[in-house]
Amino acid sequence: MRMIDIIQKKKNGETLSTKEINFMIEGYTKGEIPDYQMSAFSMAVYFKGMNKQEIADLTMAMVNSGEKIDLSAIKGIKVDKHSTGGVGDKISLIVVPLVASVGIPVAKLSGRGLGHTGGTIDKLESIEGFNIEMGTKEFIDNVNKYKMAIAGQTANLTPADKKLYALRDVTSTVDSIPLIASSIMSKKIASGADAIVLDVKVGSGAFMKNLDEARELAKTMVEIGKSLNKRTVAVISNMNQPLGYEVGNANEVKEAIKVLSGEGAEDETVVALTIASYMTVLGGAFEDFNIAYKELEKIIKSGKAIDKLKELIRIQGGNPDVISNTDMLPKAKYHIEVKALKNGYVEAINAEQIGIIAMLLGAGRKTKKDKIDYSAGVTIVKKVGDEVKLNDTICILHTNKESYNEAKKLALEAFKISKNKPEKIEYIYDVFQ
Amino acid sequence: MRMIDIIQKKKNGETLSTKEINFMIEGYTKGEIPDYQMSAFSMAVYFKGMNKQEIADLTMAMVNSGEKIDLSAIKGIKVDKHSTGGVGDKISLIVVPLVASVGIPVAKLSGRGLGHTGGTIDKLESIEGFNIEMGTKEFIDNVNKYKMAIAGQTANLTPADKKLYALRDVTSTVDSIPLIASSIMSKKIASGADAIVLDVKVGSGAFMKNLDEARELAKTMVEIGKSLNKRTVAVISNMNQPLGYEVGNANEVKEAIKVLSGEGAEDETVVALTIASYMTVLGGAFEDFNIAYKELEKIIKSGKAIDKLKELIRIQGGNPDVISNTDMLPKAKYHIEVKALKNGYVEAINAEQIGIIAMLLGAGRKTKKDKIDYSAGVTIVKKVGDEVKLNDTICILHTNKESYNEAKKLALEAFKISKNKPEKIEYIYDVFQ
Repeated sequence: MRMIDIIQKKKNGETLSTKEINFMIEGYTKGEIPDYQMSAFSMAVYFKGMNKQEIADLTMAMVNSGEKIDLSAIKGIKVDKHSTGGVGDKISLIVVPLVASVGIPVAKLSGRGLGHTGGTIDKLESIEGFNIEMGTKEFIDNVNKYKMAIAGQTANLTPADKKLYALRDVTSTVDSIPLIASSIMSKKIASGADAIVLDVKVGSGAFMKNLDEARELAKTMVEIGKSLNKRTVAVISNMNQPLGYEVGNANEVKEAIKVLSGEGAEDETVVALTIASYMTVLGGAFEDFNIAYKELEKIIKSGKAIDKLKELIRIQGGNPDVISNTDMLPKAKYHIEVKALKNGYVEAINAEQIGIIAMLLGAGRKTKKDKIDYSAGVTIVKKVGDEVKLNDTICILHTNKESYNEAKKLALEAFKISKNKPEKIEYIYDVFQ
Repeated sequence: MRMIDIIQKKKNGETLSTKEINFMIEGYTKGEIPDYQMSAFSMAVYFKGMNKQEIADLTMAMVNSGEKIDLSAIKGIKVDKHSTGGVGDKISLIVVPLVASVGIPVAKLSGRGLGHTGGTIDKLESIEGFNIEMGTKEFIDNVNKYKMAIAGQTANLTPADKKLYALRDVTSTVDSIPLIASSIMSKKIASGADAIVLDVKVGSGAFMKNLDEARELAKTMVEIGKSLNKRTVAVISNMNQPLGYEVGNANEVKEAIKVLSGEGAEDETVVALTIASYMTVLGGAFEDFNIAYKELEKIIKSGKAIDKLKELIRIQGGNPDVISNTDMLPKAKYHIEVKALKNGYVEAINAEQIGIIAMLLGAGRKTKKDKIDYSAGVTIVKKVGDEVKLNDTICILHTNKESYNEAKKLALEAFKISKNKPEKIEYIYDVFQ
């Protein structure tokens, strides 16, 4: 078998066999197949696509390229969730305790943020003492005992995907649905999930800028799940403005507390409840989505959900008092109010730009080595649809940096204010299952 | 400027600027742009093509990547010819003295053979003493004095093309018309040609297997010529059987002598006269193709053409007596007659396979390091359209090797013998200018 023949086949739009895909991914992982062949192949995939079987094979080849996490010692169906990345996306902080509170085990491995999107691990670490480092045994024991644990990923999962993603990033071959879908699904499967709920974000703050592409990606990932016997649901949610009111780390913890206490922003609450509902259905707690949604609303109202977050913080080394006293979270020195320059209605908020502003204020990393300021971030005061008057505060920048003029300028640009009241926006566009 | 943006533009089907193409080729030549980006780019070009201006820019960028041969000291219009490679293709041996005999300067830089196609330099070296190594001054002096010289290429011409071709060869991106066309044209232009006649071969023994592709390539190269002010003619000729009767090195010299003496095979003579006619027209010797063709026929009949070849051999150190006594050329020990297994007509001869057989018999190189046996080769006895009877000799294998059974088996397979007499084949399909 030769890589050049595999490239040629894909270039001609032919279907690759399981053997060919395994040969390619094994060879690439070992360094026997060079980057220049893999990048030509990726470009051919961009133009010619892959069928269901090829995408499933590629996913499994990447899963098998490295370590796999064995969660079989956890009782019950392990449901994982994944977001394609958004701004103000604190859904994981909310759904882990919420789903666990109905007895479905959530063994969550999370990452750190890079660029304009944040990471669950960073957000949790804004709670003093919160520890995401634990051995496999402790992780599994916690999930069995409390139905939840959140840890940083330490195992060498899907090295083929890591290598291929880095290559695609510099060869303009990132935006290929089969390659994106197999990349995401391989990580979830290697992490030991039995079932997966995907939050595919679409809009100005998301990787997918239009709904057709997002649908295609969602459908493709659900098909991979089917092929590999992992029940998968993909929810397509709106990222044409930041989710909720808070962007940052401590900020977002505060907002997660609000949502779990029943006082959250409407969009954040709806998306979180939607994701959590599908997770509990896949986990076998409820018969269907509507029942799950209503029951989870009740659980929030009853106070059980916020208690579960309190428990999570306590188990993982944080001070649970932070729940009732969010002033214990890190606070920034400066709070800069950004004010509207005209009357009107907020038509859109460029979420990616808000993410970049948060990063500039100290909340995110430009490069992997950068340190994070947990107190930095942005509070959105006026959301899409809200009326604004000249000089109304539209958002507040939180930072410890002395120079925030650039961020302020960008914040003004990020808000599109129009004369007419826009139609109500949808939070969830579509669901594939 | 970043290579990733250039890849992205091409992937999206956008047009690259001259600056972008120069940046890319300069960076690639210097090793600043890595192979993995260049291969992704090449695959994007395969799918999205390039327009006239881009192809001309790419050609010139490759010309400028290395040395350029300065032939300005040669009086007159320097017309070069190039063949895309065939089997039994001894056209250069014929047209150099033929064109020179009407006073048009031919400064020919030629290569050696590799794989199933031969090289002009190897063929000439089968004449004892023939020397293709000379300094630029001697080369130019010879052309000015005798209107002809044939030398091996020593200068570092188009290093970008060499590097890119080697990469395309292992990434399944060879078969892209813009990339093939710019590769060929860059070498011709760097070699100092004022005008170019291209012999685009199509058929079983050629790189281009079908006529549509050959036409596209021919048209593209003529357009490059126009863009760069180099008058260019592309002739599309038949390579569905070896050209003439002889394949090998000494063999092909013998046949070139025959053609220049007016006793050549019809197909070889027609193709050689066609190429030579366009060369003399571009060189300004004749007003149009038809006049040129008739005059060159006359020159052959008059004996001037064969005298010019004799002169070439003498000037470059060979013994000119070889013209009247071809027994002075190297001779093989074994001459194996391959006989027809049935009655019928030759419908086709797989020229590529005949080329491979010649290589196996010793006439060619599998790798660059292999030595050539000048006496080895194949004599085609029955050409397409000829009637054959059971046990008639269809071809003769010449070799010094003891084991020739594999070659004999392949030779039998290369001849397709059918019941019905095929229609007369065309030697020249089309001409672009």
